Amino acid sequence: MDLEMKKNLASNWFKILQDSICHSIQKLEKSNAIFQSKSWKRNHKKDEGGGEFRILKNGKVFDKVGVNFSKVYGKFPQKFKKNIPGTQKDPSFWASGISVVMHLKNPLIPAMHFNTRYISTTRDWFGGGMDVTPSRIDRTEEKEFHNTLKKMCNRHDKNYYKIYKKWCDQYFYLPHRKEPRGIGGIFFDYKKGNFDKNFKFVRDVGITFEFIFNKIIKKKIKKKWSMKDKEAQYIKRGRYTEFNLLYDRGTKFGLQTGGNTEGILMSLPPTAKW
Amino acid sequence: MDLEMKKNLASNWFKILQDSICHSIQKLEKSNAIFQSKSWKRNHKKDEGGGEFRILKNGKVFDKVGVNFSKVYGKFPQKFKKNIPGTQKDPSFWASGISVVMHLKNPLIPAMHFNTRYISTTRDWFGGGMDVTPSRIDRTEEKEFHNTLKKMCNRHDKNYYKIYKKWCDQYFYLPHRKEPRGIGGIFFDYKKGNFDKNFKFVRDVGITFEFIFNKIIKKKIKKKWSMKDKEAQYIKRGRYTEFNLLYDRGTKFGLQTGGNTEGILMSLPPTAKW
Repeated sequence: MDLEMKKNLASNWFKILQDSICHSIQKLEKSNAIFQSKSWKRNHKKDEGGGEFRILKNGKVFDKVGVNFSKVYGKFPQKFKKNIPGTQKDPSFWASGISVVMHLKNPLIPAMHFNTRYISTTRDWFGGGMDVTPSRIDRTEEKEFHNTLKKMCNRHDKNYYKIYKKWCDQYFYLPHRKEPRGIGGIFFDYKKGNFDKNFKFVRDVGITFEFIFNKIIKKKIKKKWSMKDKEAQYIKRGRYTEFNLLYDRGTKFGLQTGGNTEGILMSLPPTAKW
Repeated sequence: MDLEMKKNLASNWFKILQDSICHSIQKLEKSNAIFQSKSWKRNHKKDEGGGEFRILKNGKVFDKVGVNFSKVYGKFPQKFKKNIPGTQKDPSFWASGISVVMHLKNPLIPAMHFNTRYISTTRDWFGGGMDVTPSRIDRTEEKEFHNTLKKMCNRHDKNYYKIYKKWCDQYFYLPHRKEPRGIGGIFFDYKKGNFDKNFKFVRDVGITFEFIFNKIIKKKIKKKWSMKDKEAQYIKRGRYTEFNLLYDRGTKFGLQTGGNTEGILMSLPPTAKW
């Protein structure tokens, strides 16, 4: 299969998934709160791609949820490219992806994050993952979440879960606080080689995320919570903000490659406390 | 004067100033909210200094204010030292400073920040400054603030104000939003040479900060505000958080040199919104 075909398949899938996830969320939300959509271009002088981000705020179920699609291309700036495989001789890149961050009104429901992407330089690869950040411990939920991920991974490769879970734990960690961001999940990157196999896996990650957030939210949507729970959630959201602004590679990548600031910082919680 | 003497003079001054500023704040606060003090050490195995931070939260006048003193020493980690003058051949350093960040309850009163420090490697220098971040425009306040700073600078050197104001504007800027953090102030660093002259200036910066925050707060302490003003303040505090976590050198310096996380992130607002 030629590279153009692969790029089209990947970015079309991310676009379809954005629609599907937004539809699921809107069904859960039920209230009058609806997604606001905004399309943006990376460069207004020449075509370097862009994207569409959709945000739903102040719902009955969701405090804030963003579903971001992008397809961007051009050349990496000098100082950024040393971290990207395959850009030593040619700084050109093409990248498409989808990312989702949801902050729920009910503080007993964890914040959830998901992302998948396909990147092409002189090489090409998939990356992505999902992770969950509760502000209150729930061992049953944690076990079910990891079990679902493990089963999904095992459908593709018996080695995936263990490696990608560990990668996730290492990535979503706040060294200055010596604490993990949440209860982990899976994280993978630089996934080269068999496009068909990898693309199948990436699609399954997206579909599984949709299954997982539906299940977690429906189970707890009517659970009573207290202001003490809400305060704990605000503090946890402060930690979430620290991680995203101090360490997150996607945030740095976006801000340094001229991405849309509003879209990139969509992941920040509606309210955080310290 | 020998170096040890200079270090003692500088750090003793920062310590005295911490007391004085806390006393001023406590007088403004009036309510039962009092400073909580916490002393910390950089290393529990060997002596590498430490500090004392004081925080007052949930007052009637102050939502949150932190007054941080530190005196730390040791060796810079490899990856950090390339940015610090005089550490090429010897990574040893000694640093002492005071920093203050205040977030007011009344959203018509700006957030205010001040810091002065004395650093010694194979060279030694002062740095510091202050800046003000309103969430509502107030041209009179802005003019008075800059006038006070200009007069103070002029007492020491007719060239200071222009240079340090510009440096401040360049430093407290959010490139991803193409907007300044606030209305600026003064910022200076690597101030070498005549210790007596520089130390005199640094003391004046501290005393002037005390004068300025007293004046600004007293003038507006009883001004009526609306929830709309408060919401604007929360959004501005989100920007403040972005700056501190994405760009602030002091935050990076602290987190990477094993400073006390609670003390370093003391500058973050009590509540921020996006």
